[in-house]
Amino acid sequence: MDKTSRQARRIALTKMLADHPGQLFSLNRFSSLFGVAKSTLSEDLEAVRQALADFALGRLETVSGAAGGVRLVPLKTEEAAHSLLTALAEKMSAPDRIIPGGFLYMSDILFSPQLMAQVGEVFLTRFAAAAPDHIMTVETKGIPLAFATARAFNLPLVTVRRGSRVTEGTAVSINYVTGSSRRIQTMSLPKRAVPPGARVLIIDDFMKAGGTACGMVDLAREVGATVVGIGVLVATAEPADKLVDSFTPLLILRGVDEHNKKTDIRPAL
Amino acid sequence: MDKTSRQARRIALTKMLADHPGQLFSLNRFSSLFGVAKSTLSEDLEAVRQALADFALGRLETVSGAAGGVRLVPLKTEEAAHSLLTALAEKMSAPDRIIPGGFLYMSDILFSPQLMAQVGEVFLTRFAAAAPDHIMTVETKGIPLAFATARAFNLPLVTVRRGSRVTEGTAVSINYVTGSSRRIQTMSLPKRAVPPGARVLIIDDFMKAGGTACGMVDLAREVGATVVGIGVLVATAEPADKLVDSFTPLLILRGVDEHNKKTDIRPAL
Repeated sequence: MDKTSRQARRIALTKMLADHPGQLFSLNRFSSLFGVAKSTLSEDLEAVRQALADFALGRLETVSGAAGGVRLVPLKTEEAAHSLLTALAEKMSAPDRIIPGGFLYMSDILFSPQLMAQVGEVFLTRFAAAAPDHIMTVETKGIPLAFATARAFNLPLVTVRRGSRVTEGTAVSINYVTGSSRRIQTMSLPKRAVPPGARVLIIDDFMKAGGTACGMVDLAREVGATVVGIGVLVATAEPADKLVDSFTPLLILRGVDEHNKKTDIRPAL
Repeated sequence: MDKTSRQARRIALTKMLADHPGQLFSLNRFSSLFGVAKSTLSEDLEAVRQALADFALGRLETVSGAAGGVRLVPLKTEEAAHSLLTALAEKMSAPDRIIPGGFLYMSDILFSPQLMAQVGEVFLTRFAAAAPDHIMTVETKGIPLAFATARAFNLPLVTVRRGSRVTEGTAVSINYVTGSSRRIQTMSLPKRAVPPGARVLIIDDFMKAGGTACGMVDLAREVGATVVGIGVLVATAEPADKLVDSFTPLLILRGVDEHNKKTDIRPAL
């Protein structure tokens, strides 16, 4: 095997693995694609594994056995996560984001592919040990973040709808009370979206009292699934007592001072 | 420069470029990261460009000048696009997707990170020449697809909401008539989401009569933007006359036969 084609192989391997994070590629697939023996391929993969590790670009995992193969798990280092969250907190505290009523305009951040892809990798890193098999969110603003998290995990995303839609077939609906405004609302999930016994990771953009998250927990239980974690990008410091017992926020919003145009938001690390 | 570190560099370069499709990286950034001269880096990038081209994994573009650099544009070949769309059509025509009323259950497909990432690259390939600077969609089911398209283009995503939300500040709202059920509805967009003069590419999951797309066109015009294209994943064959003049569907739904459990859906190529 000459040098040039070995280099080309390693570049192509890296691109394919990076494009499909978490997906298991069988060694047979690669060795037939490149026309090389498995021993050669193993050397290639070792070079890729080492280079990714050296530059903190994710972990290449090998799964042995007949159903085995290789996959790229895009874990983020604590350092990279912290610098991302610090940058996000700074961006969110810009004075012109404050909207009358003390809300923060965050849609541009929540719909930014570049930013959400990175936040998704932070959630992967935090929740990898919980071994979820489905990611769940509720429409609308949490969808890109949950989608990016699902991509990093290589898992299906399930989106809970507010109300019930005729085009999704049989649905399970529940009523829930929004924690902050104490209104009764309905959310629903197509029955076929989550199989009984599923391990669900709930991801959302914002948590105040936790009513919406609590509704999703109820809905997951209703279809026979287990909630293995709740991750939110931003949680408010107050109320300190949320309606869900345990959740992982990445940023804590301590206060929005509408009069002086100051927002206090910090990484939760 | 010894061989091992050259290989590691090329692997790391590929991973970083693949993780941020469409993003321009300055050569200075890479040469200081790797501690190599620009001439060495140019050889590395040429090797990456060639390998990606050989395996149809996207195009590495070099932008010269002071503000220049290099970026990976994840274009899909016609062949890869066609095989993806054929696979999607087959998946969508599974008999158990038919829901009473002649609807198709597609949420699992529309929220699949793996599938939508690829469809986003097909839209990039189709609309690259239109040079959009914003991607626009409407909640809810089109969001992952539009988000993946925005990621492939490296552009901001703007999501139109149904109704108007207090947490997004000043909004522009319009009324529109849904083409199929002839109901009057409202959609709105935060005023700051799209600057005047923006070039907007509209992306949605489904088009029947085109009323929703028509509403988005009106909304874009209302904020002073130009619509440079409309891409939909699935368009119905009937009605043949849509409310928008020009749009690009990837799949054509010719009919759902609820009684015989047959769906006729085909790539639009």
